[in-house]
Amino acid sequence: MAPDLEQLPVAVDAMGGDRAPDEVVAGALQAAEELEVPVLLVGDPARLGRLDLPARVSLLAATQVVGMDEDPGRAVRAKRDASVVRCAEAVRDGLACAMVSAGNTGAAMASALLRMGRLPGVQRPAIATPIFVPGSTPTVLLDSGANTDCTPAVLVQFAQMGWALATERFGIAKPRVGLLSIGEEPAKGTSMVKEAHALLAGGAAGPAVNFIGNVEGRDVMSDRVDVVVTDGFTGNVVLKTLEGCVKAVVGGVLQAFTSSEEAKQAAKVVMPALAPLAEGLDPDTYGGAVLLGVNGVCVISHGSSGARAIVNAVKVARHAVSERLVARIEAMVGPVTASGHTH
Amino acid sequence: MAPDLEQLPVAVDAMGGDRAPDEVVAGALQAAEELEVPVLLVGDPARLGRLDLPARVSLLAATQVVGMDEDPGRAVRAKRDASVVRCAEAVRDGLACAMVSAGNTGAAMASALLRMGRLPGVQRPAIATPIFVPGSTPTVLLDSGANTDCTPAVLVQFAQMGWALATERFGIAKPRVGLLSIGEEPAKGTSMVKEAHALLAGGAAGPAVNFIGNVEGRDVMSDRVDVVVTDGFTGNVVLKTLEGCVKAVVGGVLQAFTSSEEAKQAAKVVMPALAPLAEGLDPDTYGGAVLLGVNGVCVISHGSSGARAIVNAVKVARHAVSERLVARIEAMVGPVTASGHTH
Repeated sequence: MAPDLEQLPVAVDAMGGDRAPDEVVAGALQAAEELEVPVLLVGDPARLGRLDLPARVSLLAATQVVGMDEDPGRAVRAKRDASVVRCAEAVRDGLACAMVSAGNTGAAMASALLRMGRLPGVQRPAIATPIFVPGSTPTVLLDSGANTDCTPAVLVQFAQMGWALATERFGIAKPRVGLLSIGEEPAKGTSMVKEAHALLAGGAAGPAVNFIGNVEGRDVMSDRVDVVVTDGFTGNVVLKTLEGCVKAVVGGVLQAFTSSEEAKQAAKVVMPALAPLAEGLDPDTYGGAVLLGVNGVCVISHGSSGARAIVNAVKVARHAVSERLVARIEAMVGPVTASGHTH
Repeated sequence: MAPDLEQLPVAVDAMGGDRAPDEVVAGALQAAEELEVPVLLVGDPARLGRLDLPARVSLLAATQVVGMDEDPGRAVRAKRDASVVRCAEAVRDGLACAMVSAGNTGAAMASALLRMGRLPGVQRPAIATPIFVPGSTPTVLLDSGANTDCTPAVLVQFAQMGWALATERFGIAKPRVGLLSIGEEPAKGTSMVKEAHALLAGGAAGPAVNFIGNVEGRDVMSDRVDVVVTDGFTGNVVLKTLEGCVKAVVGGVLQAFTSSEEAKQAAKVVMPALAPLAEGLDPDTYGGAVLLGVNGVCVISHGSSGARAIVNAVKVARHAVSERLVARIEAMVGPVTASGHTH
């Protein structure tokens, strides 16, 4: 990467997401203004309408769109002028320092993988998602959906990449890395998890990674661990289980708050104290997940992202560039040896 | 099973659980009184102290205890006079109609499996756990931890057994059975999940089972589905993820409620409206999980069960007996054919 990477704009997929293009464009303009970050809006000028582009914002035309329900691999191969594909190309070609998309997650992954390429030695890129922990830094959960079937050696690389992200994004000096299982003992879990435990406990992730052993589902939202490593099937189930649980519990609380006139009045009094919790639980706060293991910064914001989520995603992308996330990962993931171990 | 099964007492493992024997004994006595159910307390007379046994309560001596952290298989084989083993024997020998334990989950499973035996045709018994859904009947999640590595044919049996439990325990006429995956499309998930989907969609669980396809983690605490089928690794991760999420969110709300004098006063006003939610989220409310596929009723209450959890577990056990849960499962699970399919 060129030393002047930080001068380049962040490419924002203007057509990606349930609320695109309006909310996404609004967020991109807001990011340029508030964060003083140059932004490259990538989308179809015909659909974006008349835009008065302010300073720091430029436009890259892309006439096609990958829909939220399209098959990602097929769409990315067929639609060479899709906004998400052009975002990844902008990073590859040195026109942008990073990309942000709130569209089809699989399409963002496929675009980044096919256009930016994998980092040397990385077997499988992974999606890392920050999970809110009340009163602490978020937990990095990976893989949260890129790879359904994984091998123990792949999980070792997830540990390395998750470690790198936790140091970069949350400034944790020695992130505690745990392997998701169903008991703390090394003998707990599937055969794949047990083999991964043996590799990690044997130092396969390298001396920097502080492996604390198995962790359980209840630890994900606690401050017991900083990076939770798992396969993309389990990780995606965990992520969506948390989403459903937060929705059910918060929904129940809000219903109680509106159950009577007295409750409504009382709720007004406690609401300010609940604000930090509500903000933490709001998926817009963290600016989304990051695809780790590709040769560039790719931030994937959730599908229903509003303007604020896009601002935060641009902030995350920018931070990853200035804190050299890709170089950190490159330094962690050594070439894979014949034994399947790294280092 | 004898027709007079309902006359028999429920065997309660007096030594099992973090709060045994005091809370467990208190719960057992309370169950006998409140539910008018005969109870067989199983434990070490030397450790139980002087008990004035009221009407409907009898004592079965067992001098050994399986600790919460002991290796279940080894402990059950070595400790032939353990309270949890004697509970399972009481069911096998026609001294009790069902067993309840809040002790070592693996030991309760192993005892039930070794002493009561598997039902004909059942490949792998599974633990089914009810998950609270605000404003609806609970979702049955299985397997929530008995079998880490599963086959597609085993998941088909879980669908059948979970269906039987949902009809018995929650009186749902046509339970909606979903397969846990990471997307609704049949092509989503691990190869094992995709094969299980094909079997279930092809009717392998029999005409009664209303298979609604794949469901996601966010559906577990929703009213979209009544029975969620998954392997014991994923199910256990989901269960503990929910536990951790509820703890974090409820903890955050309670902290806000005590953050100032005004908040404390306001909290008093909204607390009554929050009571149904708090009760639903309290693990003591549902009386625990059930081991399905063994030849008898085995209710596994959580390790920190207090008296109320034991009362509810006895109620669940008694209901399963009177509503013929074991016979329902037997009728659902046909003999396994050479192809690995059932039916």
